[in-house]
Amino acid sequence: MEIREEMLKLAVAAQKASRQMALLSSAVKNELLLKMAAALEVAQDELQQENAKDLQAARDKGMAPAMVDRLSLTPERIKAMADGLREVAALPDPVGEVTGMWLRPNGIQVGRRRIPLGVIGIIYESRPNVTADAAGLCLKSGNAVVLRGGSEAIHSNRAIGSVLQQTIARMGLPQAALQVVTTRDRNAVSELLKLEEQIDLIIPRGGEGLIRFVSENSRIPVIKHYKGVCHTYVDAAADLQMAEEICLNAKVQRPGVCNAMETLLIHQDVADIFLPQITAALRKEGVELRGCEKSRQIVADLIPAGEEDWHTEYLELILAVRVVEDYPQAKEHIETYGSLHTEVIVTNDYQLSQQFLREINSSVVMVNTSSRFSDGNQLGLGAEIGISTSKLHSFGPMGLEDLTTRKFVVLGNGQIRD
Amino acid sequence: MEIREEMLKLAVAAQKASRQMALLSSAVKNELLLKMAAALEVAQDELQQENAKDLQAARDKGMAPAMVDRLSLTPERIKAMADGLREVAALPDPVGEVTGMWLRPNGIQVGRRRIPLGVIGIIYESRPNVTADAAGLCLKSGNAVVLRGGSEAIHSNRAIGSVLQQTIARMGLPQAALQVVTTRDRNAVSELLKLEEQIDLIIPRGGEGLIRFVSENSRIPVIKHYKGVCHTYVDAAADLQMAEEICLNAKVQRPGVCNAMETLLIHQDVADIFLPQITAALRKEGVELRGCEKSRQIVADLIPAGEEDWHTEYLELILAVRVVEDYPQAKEHIETYGSLHTEVIVTNDYQLSQQFLREINSSVVMVNTSSRFSDGNQLGLGAEIGISTSKLHSFGPMGLEDLTTRKFVVLGNGQIRD
Repeated sequence: MEIREEMLKLAVAAQKASRQMALLSSAVKNELLLKMAAALEVAQDELQQENAKDLQAARDKGMAPAMVDRLSLTPERIKAMADGLREVAALPDPVGEVTGMWLRPNGIQVGRRRIPLGVIGIIYESRPNVTADAAGLCLKSGNAVVLRGGSEAIHSNRAIGSVLQQTIARMGLPQAALQVVTTRDRNAVSELLKLEEQIDLIIPRGGEGLIRFVSENSRIPVIKHYKGVCHTYVDAAADLQMAEEICLNAKVQRPGVCNAMETLLIHQDVADIFLPQITAALRKEGVELRGCEKSRQIVADLIPAGEEDWHTEYLELILAVRVVEDYPQAKEHIETYGSLHTEVIVTNDYQLSQQFLREINSSVVMVNTSSRFSDGNQLGLGAEIGISTSKLHSFGPMGLEDLTTRKFVVLGNGQIRD
Repeated sequence: MEIREEMLKLAVAAQKASRQMALLSSAVKNELLLKMAAALEVAQDELQQENAKDLQAARDKGMAPAMVDRLSLTPERIKAMADGLREVAALPDPVGEVTGMWLRPNGIQVGRRRIPLGVIGIIYESRPNVTADAAGLCLKSGNAVVLRGGSEAIHSNRAIGSVLQQTIARMGLPQAALQVVTTRDRNAVSELLKLEEQIDLIIPRGGEGLIRFVSENSRIPVIKHYKGVCHTYVDAAADLQMAEEICLNAKVQRPGVCNAMETLLIHQDVADIFLPQITAALRKEGVELRGCEKSRQIVADLIPAGEEDWHTEYLELILAVRVVEDYPQAKEHIETYGSLHTEVIVTNDYQLSQQFLREINSSVVMVNTSSRFSDGNQLGLGAEIGISTSKLHSFGPMGLEDLTTRKFVVLGNGQIRD
């Protein structure tokens, strides 16, 4: 079968299954997720055998050890996948919620009812746990899901997919609600991205290259974020001890993720004290600092920061530092170089804190805390399917509700329009 | 200046202005809309003079009289534009609403605050009143707007835009918040559609050709509906007198719009009575009926309906009719041929009415009323910027709230992540 036909057939089947999934009660969906969790644990040996094939191929190709590690399915990681499914099962079901209902002057009642999106396509790289995590969130929210992982994890993804599908089938539900695309044909993604009649949403998860490819080639709406250039602004009215703890945490606790701080902005009135203090603390943790001219007048041995640094998501122990004249200059910096991900102000000035929350329109804006809290779990969404830095549909970390939409329901008793 | 540069410059200016617009109070925005309304009325002669140029060009080109009429700015239509702005001024402002705020176990408070989308591009055809209507909705919701109307209305759109921009400037607000693209360069739209860094949303309004072009060429999210193939299903348990009134209204009251009924589905148990009854009533109004085989066994002189008819949005006094065995067959028909716009059931069966509302996932589902109510004004959104039959961001008629998104606001007091 040609890849085009194969993808179409798969998407049509997913769409058909999605109509049945949309009508399942929360109880049935929760039971499904719990059984999927159990089945993954039971299949541990089988999953590890299949995973070993991917690991061997990766080593044969000379893949870096860190990458091989990401690919690896240890018993702990299998347990974590299962526990992830159990956590999602325990979350409230967004489907069916009626968000308001009102009466029109002519007597018709109008409300909006939350429904699943339909079919969700997830395009991802590397980590095979995404297969189970994404499946859990999409199925719990009443959707069907088409999963396309990286070729380096093909055996692992196929094995996980097969365990999950068998569980779906054993409950008498449509197996096509979960599709794992494991063809080696590199055109599979391009073909999926054309199926706007069958697939309602695409979520790419991976590096900027993957996301750009998906975004530029998709006829289906894409929810994405390219990068997280997160700022922390330490104001003149900051508690500098608190500021130090927050900045350390935001940069060092896990530097390789999108909500880590990449640029530190310091008000000039506190720079003389705070910059040497934070420089010492960060250097103790192995962080390289790159500073603007003003900052290098205070700490002479900072590496000079260039224009490029303000745009960069380092994802490692490097930090760009700029001393600003005042809050408006910090705001302008964020608007110019920010990626709409997460921005933090550290201040004890009540009025300025409110102004920051109002004026900075990134997807997450924070006062006096670490940007590392900017994820679905930490913000209380229960689980995260991704994060959006484009403003349509969802903006910021996305949970179950973001995998739904609302239809209008109208109750009449014979009204016609004049 | 090259068209690419020109569009980029205009979009950059709009983006800059949008940041200022996002922070305006409701009072200021309302004052702006009321002043814009007054200015349009004051400029009536000037608007009509410019409009006359478009009308003359249209006649010279041999445009059909109905099209020329759509283009025409009469004093009544100018008044209607002004009144439309006044109505939008009177609507509640969605910006700033905090939709929930909760406390996390570590003490951070997390909420979601409604903010404008930023810059909205509207691509439309013909009717110059869209210029004022769309501007009013986008500005009231705190956005900047880039308007690109059809070349046939170029003088009218430029004149309306100029009046509105002068009003913005007179209030000391950034004139770039409202941009009217009036170049005759046909590449203007393609260039606008590439500016994903500056423009947040594109709404095309016009025929299917325009919408497909925009949708296939845009890197910016597009909210659209291609067509409205709206169904009315008359159930075995329907009040047939009510059904007749509803069907007549849905087909005849304004056949040329997307929420008019295009296909009538009748349960076989009532077809013998209802089909002759509704055929007579519709024919009296000049409606041509095209029926399936079963329906032609009941009313012999119906024109035979082919597969193509079930897909067709006639937008005129033609109706496709099918007799179905039961509700599941009606549901299957709607799922196969529907456009996710609006579907109606006429029934007195409580359980079936609930089933229909639950199972049919079109953007608007109705019981015992006319599909003609499926628009933003009639449903109580106050005004309508468009209708979406794709499920992302908004699904169904869209009002002011649909021109906003929500950011997360997080209030901490020094929390860091473990």
